[in-house]
Amino acid sequence: MTASPDINAERLWADIMTMGAIGATEGGGSFRPALSDADREGRNLFRYWAQEAGLTVTVDEIGNMFARREGEDPSLPPLMIGSHLDTQMPGGKFDGVLGVLAGLAVVRSLNAGGIATRRAIEIVNFTNEEGARFQPGIMGSSVFAGLSRLDEALSRKDDEGTLLGDELVRIGYAGSRPVGGRPVHKYLELHIEQGPEMEAAGVTIAAVSNSSWGCSGFIDIKGENGHSQTAPMSKRRNALVAAAQLIIEIEAIGAENEPDGMVSATVIRNWPNNRVNIPHLTKLSYVVVHATEPGRASIISRIESAVKRIADETGLSIHNANSHYRQRLDLSSELCGQVLEAAADRGYPSMTLPTLTSHDALSMTQICPTAIIFVPCKGGISHSEKEWCEPYQVAAGARVLLDMTLKIANEL
Amino acid sequence: MTASPDINAERLWADIMTMGAIGATEGGGSFRPALSDADREGRNLFRYWAQEAGLTVTVDEIGNMFARREGEDPSLPPLMIGSHLDTQMPGGKFDGVLGVLAGLAVVRSLNAGGIATRRAIEIVNFTNEEGARFQPGIMGSSVFAGLSRLDEALSRKDDEGTLLGDELVRIGYAGSRPVGGRPVHKYLELHIEQGPEMEAAGVTIAAVSNSSWGCSGFIDIKGENGHSQTAPMSKRRNALVAAAQLIIEIEAIGAENEPDGMVSATVIRNWPNNRVNIPHLTKLSYVVVHATEPGRASIISRIESAVKRIADETGLSIHNANSHYRQRLDLSSELCGQVLEAAADRGYPSMTLPTLTSHDALSMTQICPTAIIFVPCKGGISHSEKEWCEPYQVAAGARVLLDMTLKIANEL
Repeated sequence: MTASPDINAERLWADIMTMGAIGATEGGGSFRPALSDADREGRNLFRYWAQEAGLTVTVDEIGNMFARREGEDPSLPPLMIGSHLDTQMPGGKFDGVLGVLAGLAVVRSLNAGGIATRRAIEIVNFTNEEGARFQPGIMGSSVFAGLSRLDEALSRKDDEGTLLGDELVRIGYAGSRPVGGRPVHKYLELHIEQGPEMEAAGVTIAAVSNSSWGCSGFIDIKGENGHSQTAPMSKRRNALVAAAQLIIEIEAIGAENEPDGMVSATVIRNWPNNRVNIPHLTKLSYVVVHATEPGRASIISRIESAVKRIADETGLSIHNANSHYRQRLDLSSELCGQVLEAAADRGYPSMTLPTLTSHDALSMTQICPTAIIFVPCKGGISHSEKEWCEPYQVAAGARVLLDMTLKIANEL
Repeated sequence: MTASPDINAERLWADIMTMGAIGATEGGGSFRPALSDADREGRNLFRYWAQEAGLTVTVDEIGNMFARREGEDPSLPPLMIGSHLDTQMPGGKFDGVLGVLAGLAVVRSLNAGGIATRRAIEIVNFTNEEGARFQPGIMGSSVFAGLSRLDEALSRKDDEGTLLGDELVRIGYAGSRPVGGRPVHKYLELHIEQGPEMEAAGVTIAAVSNSSWGCSGFIDIKGENGHSQTAPMSKRRNALVAAAQLIIEIEAIGAENEPDGMVSATVIRNWPNNRVNIPHLTKLSYVVVHATEPGRASIISRIESAVKRIADETGLSIHNANSHYRQRLDLSSELCGQVLEAAADRGYPSMTLPTLTSHDALSMTQICPTAIIFVPCKGGISHSEKEWCEPYQVAAGARVLLDMTLKIANEL
């Protein structure tokens, strides 16, 4: 074996910028929601680059893309490296993209060094991680890991009523390969942190230990129709006003739970949403995350109390329902330790961290040992056009990924 | 001339209930927004009833329908009686419908008594008074009175981007008659009050003296994108939270101005409106009404101050713009006096009242002497499935309309 290979950091950075130019927004982000025209363009570019690197690209029935570099023993389950190329509406240049394109950088590096591996390496682009246009997110990896059903995913509709399955056909990514059902040796995902902890601690690499407790909440507020130019103020039963009180309460509950937990109302729909009418129905939704189960329960219970109090005060009917419960999942502690070792070998300061949000890797924990490698993002900002990761941080993450790949892809 | 004719109150009530059944909602209202399939059905029924009563129905290029009972001297400008058949989404059974169908009841009564009039009588159903699906409202009467342009009205789009002109063709009401440009002798509109004053005063009839000062406001709040599961609470720049504060402030400003003025935030749009994202843009709108110009100015200025204060407190960029200014308009004082006389002759307790909201009649004040006759609505509730007017109140309004018609349609 020759000297330890390196990543072509300039090429990786240029690739990330090029991908970010597809669906580029004025504010410096990308608008590439799953199954949009821009998603197709992003996928096409990834396929082109993968084929250029000698990889074989296959697509499964939910549109997950696998770019395979064959191993010396093709019968062994592959090492998978991946993430997703879809973005929020708009999103940034790094969330998801980094994990896929760093995989390409790793493979190019092996190619440049003429390095074969025992196991095949597959770079995966999972469909619809973001859940921006079609809910829920973490979709492609969830079907791949057998956690949700293909037919249900294909029958999801966007706000205009368009079927996900139809859009997959339209953009040319309704593949023929069955989804999942095949062994995976291990799964590695390089991702930006999406929080401020690494920046605060001054580290370049974090190994993710576990996920958090989460759930979503859905509040329906029923007011009464009325004419906004004539109904006496004192008799109005304005659902939007009660919603406003709840938005403020929920934000305060979030603030009191920092740093272990958080919650904000982020979605509102209002009927009839016409200037001359008093709103008779307003719906809110929110996401709760907390490091502990009792913490999550406490947030839910405090929101429930606020709902009851505001319903009593306003005389409106308000109903809160929670679903999409997400329990803490542990990443592989062995792989976590290897991330820290690889960082130390390269001289990068590192730490372990929980992840507050979900990732495709969390689906993969259900079928194989899985690691998430974090690099920092500026100011902890993500799902934002301002999302940013410095070139040296991108390169550091890719180098750790390369070193772990060399080790794991040669495992027996 | 025979004995004074009467209204067939049972038939009128049944007609209102029958019209209300088109687009009927579970809550007891109607969902018949302008140029919907239900609007077409309502128009078809009105045309059928009008033709059955011997009237000639014509339709102009904006879809306004005119059902004409010829006068002894066809060269004289007609008396017009009317309102609109479209509803809010949903609306009630009386707003607009009463004014059109009471016109039919008046004509049927003249027919039954074999009574001819010197001037023609035209019952008009104006297109899109409500502005529920296509904005702005008061559309058909505004174009008819030369206050707005036909081509601009036809090019309005609904939320799905559908053109008003295309919908008019689709439902078969893109008429060939030029809009307006012809003399109208006088215009009478019977309408529910949409406020609580008549019920409180115990009267059956009100003559409307004037309209109020009004305007609409549009607030844009710019926050910052962010991940709702990871961004620290203390660093969030959540546009929706600032919007919530403003909704509450605006409601309080409205409450302090009661009874002379009112304002509520009624419309909200939020981006990206996805659970995992902190909203970066939220838009609110509201309608201000006040009896006086200084009162309107004071409400606008207080909202402007709240915007500045909340922008300062949150550090967000918030911008308020006001438009759709509506100044006080006076109805014909002569006709107003005649409404009170007609009520007295029939033994109905009456009063004069301003109107807080807009009506097709306000467009008509610009081209001919115009009266609005109010009957009460239960609890002051309108733009609501619960909107209600008692049968005896409906009959009383129609009788006053009949008596005024007999007088005015015979004027030289």
